[in-house]
Amino acid sequence: MSYIKKNFLLTTKTAEGLYFDYAKNMPIIDYHCHLPEKQILENKPFSDIFEIWLAGDHYKWRLMRNYGVDEEYITGTKSNKEKFITYCSVLGTAFGNPLYHWSQVELEEYFGCTLEINAQNAEAIWDMCNEYIKKNNVTPQSLIESSNVTHVFTTNEVFDDLTTFEKIAEKNYKFKVVPAFRADKIMNMEAEKFLTFIGMLEAQTHKIEDLSTLECAIEKRLNAFLQVGARASDIAVEYVPAVPKREEADRVFKAVLSGKAPTKEDIDTYKGHLVYFLMRLYARYNIATELHIGAMRNNNTKMLGRLGLDTGFDSISDTNSISMLSRLLDRLDNENSLPKLIIFNLNPKMNAEIMALIGCFQGSNTRGKVQYGPAWWFLDNKIGMEKHLEDLTATGHLGAFVGMLTDSRSFLSYPRHHYFRRILCNYLGGLMENGEMTGDMDFVGSVVKDVCYNNAINYFNM
Amino acid sequence: MSYIKKNFLLTTKTAEGLYFDYAKNMPIIDYHCHLPEKQILENKPFSDIFEIWLAGDHYKWRLMRNYGVDEEYITGTKSNKEKFITYCSVLGTAFGNPLYHWSQVELEEYFGCTLEINAQNAEAIWDMCNEYIKKNNVTPQSLIESSNVTHVFTTNEVFDDLTTFEKIAEKNYKFKVVPAFRADKIMNMEAEKFLTFIGMLEAQTHKIEDLSTLECAIEKRLNAFLQVGARASDIAVEYVPAVPKREEADRVFKAVLSGKAPTKEDIDTYKGHLVYFLMRLYARYNIATELHIGAMRNNNTKMLGRLGLDTGFDSISDTNSISMLSRLLDRLDNENSLPKLIIFNLNPKMNAEIMALIGCFQGSNTRGKVQYGPAWWFLDNKIGMEKHLEDLTATGHLGAFVGMLTDSRSFLSYPRHHYFRRILCNYLGGLMENGEMTGDMDFVGSVVKDVCYNNAINYFNM
Amino acid sequence: MSYIKKNFLLTTKTAEGLYFDYAKNMPIIDYHCHLPEKQILENKPFSDIFEIWLAGDHYKWRLMRNYGVDEEYITGTKSNKEKFITYCSVLGTAFGNPLYHWSQVELEEYFGCTLEINAQNAEAIWDMCNEYIKKNNVTPQSLIESSNVTHVFTTNEVFDDLTTFEKIAEKNYKFKVVPAFRADKIMNMEAEKFLTFIGMLEAQTHKIEDLSTLECAIEKRLNAFLQVGARASDIAVEYVPAVPKREEADRVFKAVLSGKAPTKEDIDTYKGHLVYFLMRLYARYNIATELHIGAMRNNNTKMLGRLGLDTGFDSISDTNSISMLSRLLDRLDNENSLPKLIIFNLNPKMNAEIMALIGCFQGSNTRGKVQYGPAWWFLDNKIGMEKHLEDLTATGHLGAFVGMLTDSRSFLSYPRHHYFRRILCNYLGGLMENGEMTGDMDFVGSVVKDVCYNNAINYFNM
Repeated sequence: MSYIKKNFLLTTKTAEGLYFDYAKNMPIIDYHCHLPEKQILENKPFSDIFEIWLAGDHYKWRLMRNYGVDEEYITGTKSNKEKFITYCSVLGTAFGNPLYHWSQVELEEYFGCTLEINAQNAEAIWDMCNEYIKKNNVTPQSLIESSNVTHVFTTNEVFDDLTTFEKIAEKNYKFKVVPAFRADKIMNMEAEKFLTFIGMLEAQTHKIEDLSTLECAIEKRLNAFLQVGARASDIAVEYVPAVPKREEADRVFKAVLSGKAPTKEDIDTYKGHLVYFLMRLYARYNIATELHIGAMRNNNTKMLGRLGLDTGFDSISDTNSISMLSRLLDRLDNENSLPKLIIFNLNPKMNAEIMALIGCFQGSNTRGKVQYGPAWWFLDNKIGMEKHLEDLTATGHLGAFVGMLTDSRSFLSYPRHHYFRRILCNYLGGLMENGEMTGDMDFVGSVVKDVCYNNAINYFNM
Repeated sequence: MSYIKKNFLLTTKTAEGLYFDYAKNMPIIDYHCHLPEKQILENKPFSDIFEIWLAGDHYKWRLMRNYGVDEEYITGTKSNKEKFITYCSVLGTAFGNPLYHWSQVELEEYFGCTLEINAQNAEAIWDMCNEYIKKNNVTPQSLIESSNVTHVFTTNEVFDDLTTFEKIAEKNYKFKVVPAFRADKIMNMEAEKFLTFIGMLEAQTHKIEDLSTLECAIEKRLNAFLQVGARASDIAVEYVPAVPKREEADRVFKAVLSGKAPTKEDIDTYKGHLVYFLMRLYARYNIATELHIGAMRNNNTKMLGRLGLDTGFDSISDTNSISMLSRLLDRLDNENSLPKLIIFNLNPKMNAEIMALIGCFQGSNTRGKVQYGPAWWFLDNKIGMEKHLEDLTATGHLGAFVGMLTDSRSFLSYPRHHYFRRILCNYLGGLMENGEMTGDMDFVGSVVKDVCYNNAINYFNM
Repeated sequence: MSYIKKNFLLTTKTAEGLYFDYAKNMPIIDYHCHLPEKQILENKPFSDIFEIWLAGDHYKWRLMRNYGVDEEYITGTKSNKEKFITYCSVLGTAFGNPLYHWSQVELEEYFGCTLEINAQNAEAIWDMCNEYIKKNNVTPQSLIESSNVTHVFTTNEVFDDLTTFEKIAEKNYKFKVVPAFRADKIMNMEAEKFLTFIGMLEAQTHKIEDLSTLECAIEKRLNAFLQVGARASDIAVEYVPAVPKREEADRVFKAVLSGKAPTKEDIDTYKGHLVYFLMRLYARYNIATELHIGAMRNNNTKMLGRLGLDTGFDSISDTNSISMLSRLLDRLDNENSLPKLIIFNLNPKMNAEIMALIGCFQGSNTRGKVQYGPAWWFLDNKIGMEKHLEDLTATGHLGAFVGMLTDSRSFLSYPRHHYFRRILCNYLGGLMENGEMTGDMDFVGSVVKDVCYNNAINYFNM
């Protein structure tokens, strides 16, 4: 039996009460993830625990690399079983790492395996989980359903084909799958394939020869997304650039379309305009913006060449400017064009300054119109969440918070919601037992339920 | 009965001992606040709980905005009672926010009301507090006196009329009211009313036509402040600019006097010189400087237009440069012109670097000559104070610390001193019970008393 | 009897078990310190407690300055005894400061003195410790030996004479003393004595007239260091500059050799090249690099003039750029020239971003090839270490960590290793008792032993 007990992360009786009586059974709305909608529709059973658990998870790969494991055992030619056993060995001593918890909880929740993960048990775990998979029909849909998920927002590019969503909508799943609208690929002018992506957008719309035709194409696509149920949009930038004059952005865009290589300034100009344009657009259609800032991507170009994007070589940036963000929000607010906005910030040193800024740009049409997103990616761990809750409650209003997401490529990530809920309940339970807040369980429990589920449902107008 | 118990925030017996036997009954010196001295002199009784508690408190307004409350219920046309009830409703679920504690404590300490603040009790609280106000003569002076305050340092501009202070001095109040000297309004060259402010200074002194006549006017006014008992000065800048050549600042100032609009560089040049000049001046007259850095003000220009300054739309800056601050302190120290200095920093990520720098510029004439100010504004909360104490003790000397202030516009803010004292005693009590410091209560208690009151009295030569 | 009990810093039974059964008796490898090798060889007995404890310790000096002590009592003309008594008085109320703990522990461990350090006991402590020193032959070697140290890495400049190490190697000490290779003095082109230092390197090698002859001289000296057993190198820079073109660095270097005063850009160009060159060199010879970033030195030029370098007037910088660091590591990795690397960062706000970056540049030849160094200098205290452990485990792998160092000029600093070990065991013991990790004591104990000693032994190929 592993160290995970029923009261995992719940250090007081009050915390247990909040979790088991209020939080645990709330459904899940996963308002930002990277699940492939096609895989959900196809619903092909998984073949082994490696495929479902390790094959695509760059969090796990990083941990192995940090321990000095050879890439052959991570993404290389070794067998699934060898890789699995290596991961279990490495994980065994990764005390304090979120994967140490997540991995253990995932095996228990989805495969009934409660063996402690380590080198010694690795082989037995491999057998036990694979036997479970063979006996049970473990599919993408079964995993989503058994996790009590009601809504999945996948992340799709502006030019993505949306027919899969139509097909899913025709089925009678117990959960809804809708895309979040993302235009990053046609915003990142520095990328090698930028013109290809513009071409893909053209293929879905019309000839793009300047900013106006681009913007028109984007809006067309947004409408297509809305028709299949989209309620959110994503923007990911390392930092928020200044908003340039429109004609400057137009000039840069046309030059690049005609083959010019953009300078650093060109890229900022174009991106600065597009962020501004997109947020105005989202405000007009009243869909929420999920703005992700602070990731510094592809640090290791050698490994980028070998493995491609999103393989565990991203990190945290320090180039954001809070005054630039202030100027952007102020301009949009002045023009009555500030959308509902969740700011996901990856650099924890900026928590306080962003949270304080957020308090300057609220609105009465939505509870928590502009809000600070949950602890995310490198911060999606116990200390990250605890710091998030402390910082959020110190300067903002917990009752308005839309709560957790997975941001995951894996169908096994829903326990991260439970992880968050336990930490939330433990935080509030502790305050209650210390006499730092009301002792009214039902009253606090209703706020817990809001943060777990109801607030997000309302925020995204589901 | 609310959740606030006698041992609020005191989690050990030792902490209780320190608080009740040493901290609680120490008087208060409020060495930085924004109370209007005229209101103290006039001493007009308050008419209702809204007027005294909500009418001017932008901390409370921000919290309501964060929860999506319409501005009509905050600063708009709704009735006092409607606004009050809205605030109570919003506060009810603001678990962890400092206002959640402060508001509850204020109602208990000043109006004997122990009902838990929430939507359900709002009406009863409204009635109870207003009845109390009607029955008792609640005035500015009665609030200050009942709070055991011995000294109030208001914040006054260089050109302010000081006769109110003379009148107050003639009365036999149990507390002293003196101004802190502030020249911000004639330093902020970027402000629309800059020339008006220069004119107001001229009206109090003489014709100002260049840097020399300006500096001479400032010194005259400082002398006037000193005559009514001033012992401290304030400087508030978003960041500390480089010190320019004097003739550069003179050139910029004269150009602006003659109608030129200053550039960003001009503003830095002028401000950089004035900060340097003022600190030299304060050193010469041996009054302490309270340097406030790190506020980014007026982020929301739409609301600035509607509500004006200081209405809850400021936030935290990230533009300070520790090397610039180092250069300034070094130059002043080299010229034997470094005044006693309290640095109030609003961005918690800079705690460590500023605290370490402070250790490089001490002097033997004062205990803690240069010091790190208490957790302030957005940091004036439990986690802010705890982090402050941890960072301060890790790199500095707790025994030299001058302790808490209110920085408030409200006569009900003195419980923030009690809040700080409880956290201080809880911090030390915890270390004592863990065997991390001496168990000698009287010895520790005397340091507690110093930090609560005595250190500030000595620091400001009261 | 002082407040230090046997279970100091160990708040759970499990923590005690980990410390006493696994951590306590592990030997010490001090892989970065500033002990003078000559003093070890000479082994002259210390004459009094002042000489051994206060005479050269700028940490203690800073604390006294922070409390307003006159420099005469710190580095001035007062007697040893007066200075000692002053320090004890100041320390008595420095609750929470690491020196408050270290000082107490040092007196107990090395002089059997358990009196609580404060003004009242100062005289008795003075007598007791000096009597101990008179009765016992307290020497550098006796202190190292009694601390169970197996390896000491001193820090030596590229031009240092190494014969002392040869002589030490011939003796039969129970510990090894080897130099870490450092080229900082010939890298800091801005220093007044730069050309003198180049001359000293020439004296050990050959005529240096350009970058090629410089690099050749450095490599010669590295070989000399390796012959006396060096296994590590040090680089200390405030920030990591960009890597310039080689010919640019050559041009700058030659100009400075011929008498030109370097500009800020010149300095960055030269330093940027040397950091890159040195790390490539260290990779080639397979010795680890200890990169120290984030110190802002000599803030107080008046005191620099009076007391010289390393006297307590350094602080924490904020000028590091994570993207610059990323570019450097990526370039080296691309060229298969990234050495084993420990990054010591002095600004805690950068913990997360550096730790995340480190995860992008690992290798399979070493467990934890690139790693985040322990809490260091201004962070070498309880909250610094706890934050380090929390941040490290959240994003990295604890099992790969090489653990603590002293970075000290004092022979009494080894209790800092015990201090770290107690905090490590308390951290893990807490997780174990909370059910956040395995309860297998032997398994966890073996990781504790690795972090205390074995990992560093393996990392440095001892």
